[in-house]
Amino acid sequence: MTFGLGIDAGGTYTKLVAAAGSGKVLRRTRLATEPGRGARSFVARVAGAVGDLERGLGSRAAAACLALAGDVDQSSGGLRRSPNMAGLENFPIRSALSRALERPVAIHNDANMAAWGCYALELGRRYPSVVCVTLGTGVGGGLILDGRLVTGATGSAGEIGHMRVEAGGALCGCGGRGCLEAYAGKSGIMRIAAGVLGSGSYPRSRLNGCGDRLQPRHIASSARRGDPAARETWTRVGRALGAGLINIIYLFNPDAVVFTGGVSKAAPLFMGPVRRALRAETFRAPFGRVKLFVAKNADLGALGAAVYSLEN
Amino acid sequence: MTFGLGIDAGGTYTKLVAAAGSGKVLRRTRLATEPGRGARSFVARVAGAVGDLERGLGSRAAAACLALAGDVDQSSGGLRRSPNMAGLENFPIRSALSRALERPVAIHNDANMAAWGCYALELGRRYPSVVCVTLGTGVGGGLILDGRLVTGATGSAGEIGHMRVEAGGALCGCGGRGCLEAYAGKSGIMRIAAGVLGSGSYPRSRLNGCGDRLQPRHIASSARRGDPAARETWTRVGRALGAGLINIIYLFNPDAVVFTGGVSKAAPLFMGPVRRALRAETFRAPFGRVKLFVAKNADLGALGAAVYSLEN
Repeated sequence: MTFGLGIDAGGTYTKLVAAAGSGKVLRRTRLATEPGRGARSFVARVAGAVGDLERGLGSRAAAACLALAGDVDQSSGGLRRSPNMAGLENFPIRSALSRALERPVAIHNDANMAAWGCYALELGRRYPSVVCVTLGTGVGGGLILDGRLVTGATGSAGEIGHMRVEAGGALCGCGGRGCLEAYAGKSGIMRIAAGVLGSGSYPRSRLNGCGDRLQPRHIASSARRGDPAARETWTRVGRALGAGLINIIYLFNPDAVVFTGGVSKAAPLFMGPVRRALRAETFRAPFGRVKLFVAKNADLGALGAAVYSLEN
Repeated sequence: MTFGLGIDAGGTYTKLVAAAGSGKVLRRTRLATEPGRGARSFVARVAGAVGDLERGLGSRAAAACLALAGDVDQSSGGLRRSPNMAGLENFPIRSALSRALERPVAIHNDANMAAWGCYALELGRRYPSVVCVTLGTGVGGGLILDGRLVTGATGSAGEIGHMRVEAGGALCGCGGRGCLEAYAGKSGIMRIAAGVLGSGSYPRSRLNGCGDRLQPRHIASSARRGDPAARETWTRVGRALGAGLINIIYLFNPDAVVFTGGVSKAAPLFMGPVRRALRAETFRAPFGRVKLFVAKNADLGALGAAVYSLEN
């Protein structure tokens, strides 16, 4: 059976998936990324994990694609910048992994591969133009136009987390102000929650006593139990996402927008405000057409990379 | 000689251009659009003008493309909505003109055809991904990605004038608040000028006594003569354009952005603030790559349509 290999490297874990073109998963595994050990170590450990996986399968992948959490440079075949994987920056990771695996390897931004997974697997290629919004620690994105991935002039297309939704607004990790990520990324959500719930500290009792390491999922579980302040937090997150989507839809006029990433599990809490924002636009054709989805699959980065490797 | 026919219908005039694929103009003419006389009259008058033009040339165009100032519906082959040409809305203008001209006719949004002109003629196809910003009464746009025109799911892609640059900001003609057009369209520029120059009225003496019908070009000529308030007006327009471009660049990562339309003649007055806004972004790869241009040709809508008709 022909299958592709998708490798999705994030700051903590690197996930490997062997999948058929249909998206059917044949085998998966993961390893610690440990970017601090450097790019050579990373390549050697990934190659070892691929060898183990293929021995287990008794078969060899026809192609491989590496999805990376960072700004991918297609000309050098490496990472220009990766806030969470600085140890892998400025190294020709594509050619090194290609030599180690003895086959061609493609590299892409992880949000772009998740977007391919949304387009090809979640939506079954029914919609030619798709925007994927990845909600996690940061806010990423990817664009499929007429069935083709948009990478942009420097491979940086789809960086929707840094589109501005509030001129001069909240400070973002990138140094800018008012970025979508500063409202819908993890620390942005927690900042909104702190502002809504009290004077800058989290009243733990209202958040179900989950201790020091509060996360968006705790705000979500409080909201599901009806806590008004937690619900208000998600309303504000939804308004920011709606403002970002309005700009994306005016520019790109997609058939579909798909939310993915861990924070997308809170979609029932923020989709109402998102839909209300889109409905208020008077330019009906693009806003009437676009359909909103929440991805069901949790590993679309690795899975999208596996499927993408087979066709490009 | 093979040539294409570009027909650019705006609220006041409809321009016809016969041009070779190289962009070389063989002949041009224009007629009053008079949308109030209805779509059937418009089609008949355009067909008459095409006949005159082709008799003058002694040759017949291989193909024709009609560029329309409004929201073009490819499925019906007509205009869904056109604020300045309501008389042409909801009529199958593509099939009617095709019958009248006895040849296939394509229809597209005028800003999209100007974008094709920017991509193919102004920039000579040197850059695969180009964003065109049309500055006139309104603010429009068009996108070329990897050498292909992006029309979007409903033909509405590139509506950059209604991207928000200021949440809850100035009221736009579309009913929204904070749209780019509300700062860089004609009435937006004049509103900024009124605010900068005095308490809501234009001090004519400082604007070179140009009477009641002040236009952005009058603010531009005052600014060129060093009037500080007029210069400040263009600085604010440039900041709004910079804010809009930041969002466009994060989303599409284009090789080039081209300004066109009548107000783009004021580019030397607003490009400084635009460039400063882009330089402030910390995400260097896309912002370091993008090049800014001002189109030299004034009729890129008709010319772009003529060239586009020959290849699509």
